Amino acid sequence: MAYKQFSAQFLPAVETALHSLLEQHFQQDRYADLRYMMAYHLGWEGEGSGARAQGKRIRPQITLLCCAAAGGDWHNAIPAATAVELIHNFSLIHDDIEDRSELRHGRKTVWAKWGEAQAINTGDAMLTLAHLALIDLDRSLPAVKTLAAAELLQTTCLDLTRGQFLDISFETKRSIPVEDYWPMVGGKTAALLAGCAKLGSLVGGADEDRQDAFYRFGYSLGLAFQAQDDALGIWGDAALLGKSIESDLVSGKKTLPVVFALVKNNAFAQRWLAGPITIEEVPQLAEELRDEGAKEFTLAQADRLTTEALEALHEAVSEPTAGQALEELALDLLKRNR
Amino acid sequence: MAYKQFSAQFLPAVETALHSLLEQHFQQDRYADLRYMMAYHLGWEGEGSGARAQGKRIRPQITLLCCAAAGGDWHNAIPAATAVELIHNFSLIHDDIEDRSELRHGRKTVWAKWGEAQAINTGDAMLTLAHLALIDLDRSLPAVKTLAAAELLQTTCLDLTRGQFLDISFETKRSIPVEDYWPMVGGKTAALLAGCAKLGSLVGGADEDRQDAFYRFGYSLGLAFQAQDDALGIWGDAALLGKSIESDLVSGKKTLPVVFALVKNNAFAQRWLAGPITIEEVPQLAEELRDEGAKEFTLAQADRLTTEALEALHEAVSEPTAGQALEELALDLLKRNR
Repeated sequence: MAYKQFSAQFLPAVETALHSLLEQHFQQDRYADLRYMMAYHLGWEGEGSGARAQGKRIRPQITLLCCAAAGGDWHNAIPAATAVELIHNFSLIHDDIEDRSELRHGRKTVWAKWGEAQAINTGDAMLTLAHLALIDLDRSLPAVKTLAAAELLQTTCLDLTRGQFLDISFETKRSIPVEDYWPMVGGKTAALLAGCAKLGSLVGGADEDRQDAFYRFGYSLGLAFQAQDDALGIWGDAALLGKSIESDLVSGKKTLPVVFALVKNNAFAQRWLAGPITIEEVPQLAEELRDEGAKEFTLAQADRLTTEALEALHEAVSEPTAGQALEELALDLLKRNR
Repeated sequence: MAYKQFSAQFLPAVETALHSLLEQHFQQDRYADLRYMMAYHLGWEGEGSGARAQGKRIRPQITLLCCAAAGGDWHNAIPAATAVELIHNFSLIHDDIEDRSELRHGRKTVWAKWGEAQAINTGDAMLTLAHLALIDLDRSLPAVKTLAAAELLQTTCLDLTRGQFLDISFETKRSIPVEDYWPMVGGKTAALLAGCAKLGSLVGGADEDRQDAFYRFGYSLGLAFQAQDDALGIWGDAALLGKSIESDLVSGKKTLPVVFALVKNNAFAQRWLAGPITIEEVPQLAEELRDEGAKEFTLAQADRLTTEALEALHEAVSEPTAGQALEELALDLLKRNR
């Protein structure tokens, strides 16, 4: 795939930039453990480190590809790509504490390993490092543009905290209004992908209309990904076949199919509102939920949003090779490989 | 006092800016509770709200006075003053979780009231809001200067997280090397005061040498304040007279007198290393610590640092009325009112 050829260039450059950023800011011996907690979380060091622990670095790839697709030189966007990957990882470190998740990629999370106090502070340091990284854009951009990029990244972070606020609030509620579902996943998933895309295009020289089209591409892609992921969390193989513990029905997550069914208020809704769902009930309730139209609805939303994402992308792109690679990356993310 | 006349102008302007910032970013009903948690922490709303809960807003006053003392119009520095107050409060929200502190100014802390998950996220939102507030400097400053201010504030935040990292690390150690004491309080206390001062002077039009002098003023002031506070935490009235529970000897805090005595390794050190100190032991151990020279040493450090702060201030100031007010504020903070 074309985008994998781009990745082969991009990813080593991103890792190098991340490494040198950490070395630059935590070189004194007394901060070695702070650096180590970050290096551990980023998948470089400690037990279980390696490619799987590092994740896919999707967000920096989007930023760099959008820079290229806007007709720019992707090298100039490396500070932005570094920044978005650090923002993503800051949010994971804090989310893991907030959700009491002890494992990520099969490894102990930062708070599970070093305690909450160090994990909160390490997340704060990583968030700060992200914004510092971004300011390096001024090596190739005028200050006005670098400032616009800094504001965009901060606005994106504010969206993240708004989405996270809704998500935490929803945990203690058995049902949520459907009009609150989209802002929640918009903040938690779509805003950062949208920010990555717009940021890349800003560095690449896109005008404001094009930047907005890149933003809409990223935002719709994020929502489509979430709708798709919500469907997989209930009707995917892992959720249905023998690993019902991985079903979102058991965790009580407010996914799109569930929110849809709660509005319908039929048999599934009644069972859901009666209390936690057990593993044994999963196959039958997943079927009930599908019979009530929730799967069809959810996949239709994913389809609609994918179409919107690709339309925005076609509107945005000025450099077709990178544009094609972006489309492939998007479809790969949505597990819609052709 | 002259600085109180400045404060009477400054403080309402800072509160107004803080209020409108929160209203601007959390106006939608679904984020009302997120705004409320911030308004509660800032001392505006909820049980126990009012002047005492709001704190003294020392940091924005330093920023605005340094702007004026550098010959600038303090109105232009309002976005910076707003930002530093939010940075300070973000760090309090997270510190309270990290230290398991359930009360602040006699009121329940955010995590004690709404749980850790919401408190971590509210702190993240407040940190982000601070940096967004700062970008408004570009209404009166060129982009290059606003960008320099943004970088300065991010660097300051990184210093905060480094200091907090050391502080958390030290909690599990009975003794720390004296050369680690200054970087710890430098990060936790001095860096933000230094950042406030430099930021104000930058907006006020000071050149880089003067900005550095303002920075040194704030940094030395912060260290002097901490040394003074460390002495009060052991030999102050509250610590000694009938409220020994407020003694830093009982909490096991690594203060300057204790770190000094641990290096001496005499009677006090031996008792300290043997395990937690009880309330009953406080008067005698405070006396022992004084006899070993720790009080004299600590107050001499506070004196030296106060002198350094004032020398840097005199070097920095170009507008004497605001400079005089700054000196008064500094001496008031150090409880050295003449």
